[in-house]
Amino acid sequence: MQLRSKRSKHNVRVAYADTDQARVVHHASYFRYLEVARVEFWREHGFDYDAFEKRTGLGLPVVEAKLRYRASARFDDLLEVETWISRASRASVWFDAVIRKAGAVIHESSVRLACASFDDGTIRSIPDELLERCLDR
Amino acid sequence: MQLRSKRSKHNVRVAYADTDQARVVHHASYFRYLEVARVEFWREHGFDYDAFEKRTGLGLPVVEAKLRYRASARFDDLLEVETWISRASRASVWFDAVIRKAGAVIHESSVRLACASFDDGTIRSIPDELLERCLDR
Amino acid sequence: MQLRSKRSKHNVRVAYADTDQARVVHHASYFRYLEVARVEFWREHGFDYDAFEKRTGLGLPVVEAKLRYRASARFDDLLEVETWISRASRASVWFDAVIRKAGAVIHESSVRLACASFDDGTIRSIPDELLERCLDR
Amino acid sequence: MQLRSKRSKHNVRVAYADTDQARVVHHASYFRYLEVARVEFWREHGFDYDAFEKRTGLGLPVVEAKLRYRASARFDDLLEVETWISRASRASVWFDAVIRKAGAVIHESSVRLACASFDDGTIRSIPDELLERCLDR
Repeated sequence: MQLRSKRSKHNVRVAYADTDQARVVHHASYFRYLEVARVEFWREHGFDYDAFEKRTGLGLPVVEAKLRYRASARFDDLLEVETWISRASRASVWFDAVIRKAGAVIHESSVRLACASFDDGTIRSIPDELLERCLDR
Repeated sequence: MQLRSKRSKHNVRVAYADTDQARVVHHASYFRYLEVARVEFWREHGFDYDAFEKRTGLGLPVVEAKLRYRASARFDDLLEVETWISRASRASVWFDAVIRKAGAVIHESSVRLACASFDDGTIRSIPDELLERCLDR
Repeated sequence: MQLRSKRSKHNVRVAYADTDQARVVHHASYFRYLEVARVEFWREHGFDYDAFEKRTGLGLPVVEAKLRYRASARFDDLLEVETWISRASRASVWFDAVIRKAGAVIHESSVRLACASFDDGTIRSIPDELLERCLDR
Repeated sequence: MQLRSKRSKHNVRVAYADTDQARVVHHASYFRYLEVARVEFWREHGFDYDAFEKRTGLGLPVVEAKLRYRASARFDDLLEVETWISRASRASVWFDAVIRKAGAVIHESSVRLACASFDDGTIRSIPDELLERCLDR
C-alpha cells in the first residue's frame, strides 16, 4: 500500500568515531543515523518506540535495505535526515529517507522493517499503532 | 559486464559488541562482515588491498548497497561469508555475498564500489588490478 | 598542572545501535559519548576542533583512559555528559567527565590525550589553543 | 586475590571499519578486541561463555577499565591479544591484556567485570565456573 505519510527532519552531527581512514563517514554509520531518525520520527508523531517494545515484547528487525551513497559526509558535518513511511503491508513497513548536507542530497535509502516477538522470534503483523499517527489524512 | 568470478569463503565469529538489545546481530554489523570478507577475498586471490591504497592513493567507497536479512544471527554464531564479484564496469565493481549459518542462508547482499582519489575525492576508473586475479578464465 | 577548567554539559540520546544483548549500553559506546562531548565542550568555548585538525595537521590520540561504570544506561535514555579539563602538561591533556541519567551519576572517566602529527605520527607539544579558552581565570 | 591464571593468545585482523580519519584504529575499537579475546580465552580453557549466559541468565558487565595506548594500530594489521585473569574477588574478576603488533606491545589494559542477573539487574557473586578451568595449579 502506498501511503501519504507525515515526514520529519532530524539533525545529526557526524562524530569522529563515525569516520574511517578514507576520512569520510564509514558506510555502516549511515544505518545509525537512519535508525535514530526513525525513532525521532515516531517520537515527533506521538509514538514512543521504546515504550512500544517494553509493552508489547515486539521488535522491528530490518529485513531489507537499499542504500545509495551520492556524496561523502565528513567529521563534524551537520546532516539533516528526512524520514517518512513510504509503504506498508501486513508484514512490512518501509521507511524512506534522504540525508542532506548543506541542502544537497548525499544519501537516499529505503529500509524495510518486519515485526517479530522477542520471546520466540515469530513474525507478527505490523501493529496499526506504528502507522496511525504517521499518516497524512 | 557480467563476470565469471572466483569465489571465496571467509568465517566470522559474531562478537558480543555486534549484538543489540533485540539479542540478535544489529543490522549494521553485517557491513563489517562484508567488508572484511572483501579484503580477505582479494588477499586469497593475491591482491593486497591495504598495499593498493598506500601505493595508489585510491580508495573504494561504497556507493550502493542492497541487503536482505533472511534470518537472525546471534552472539557467538560462526558465520560463513561467501563473496564474489558479480559485475564490473569502468566506474563500478559489484561484490555479491551470501552469509550462511549452519549451512542456511541468512543474508544476501550486493555492494557496489566506486574508485576515488583520497587527495581530492575525484572519481577514477576501476583499476584492472582489482579484477584481474579474481576472474575465472 | 591542575587546572581550573570551564565545564560544559552535553545531552546524548542512547541509540538502539549502542545497546548489546544484555539490553544495556555496550561499554564501548561510552567512548563515543565522551568523544562527542569533548568536541562540543570545545565548540562551546569557542574552539573548533575540526578546523584545528585541518589547519595544523595535528590530531589528539587517546593515550590512556580510566572508566568507571556505576550503573547501566538503556536504549532511549537521555544522558547528560559533563566534561572538563582536569590536568594538562606539555605532552598531555586530561579530560574528565561524569555522565548522569535522571540526575544520578552512572559513569565517571578520565581520558588522556596526546598530540601527534598526522603526516608522520611524531608527538608534539599540546598547543596552547586547546586550553586557553577553556580555563577559568 | 592475586591469581596464577592461564593465558591465551588470540589474533585479530584490523578491519577498515575499526579505523578513523586519523588513519589509525579508533580507541573504542580496542574494547571489541579485548571482549573477543576474553570469550576466546574462556573457550580455549573449556568454558563456553555463550552457553553460560543462556543457562544461568547471568551476564558480566564491564564495571571498570584502565587502558594504555602505547602505539597505533592500523588497517589490516595482525594483532596478538594476550589475555589472563589477574585478580578475582566475590564481586569482580579482572582481565588483563597486552596487545602486540609485530612483537611490540601497543596496548595494555585491565578490565573489571561484575556479575549481574539479566532479569532484574541485581548483582551476584562471581560464579566459580568462570575461574576454575582458568587457573594454573
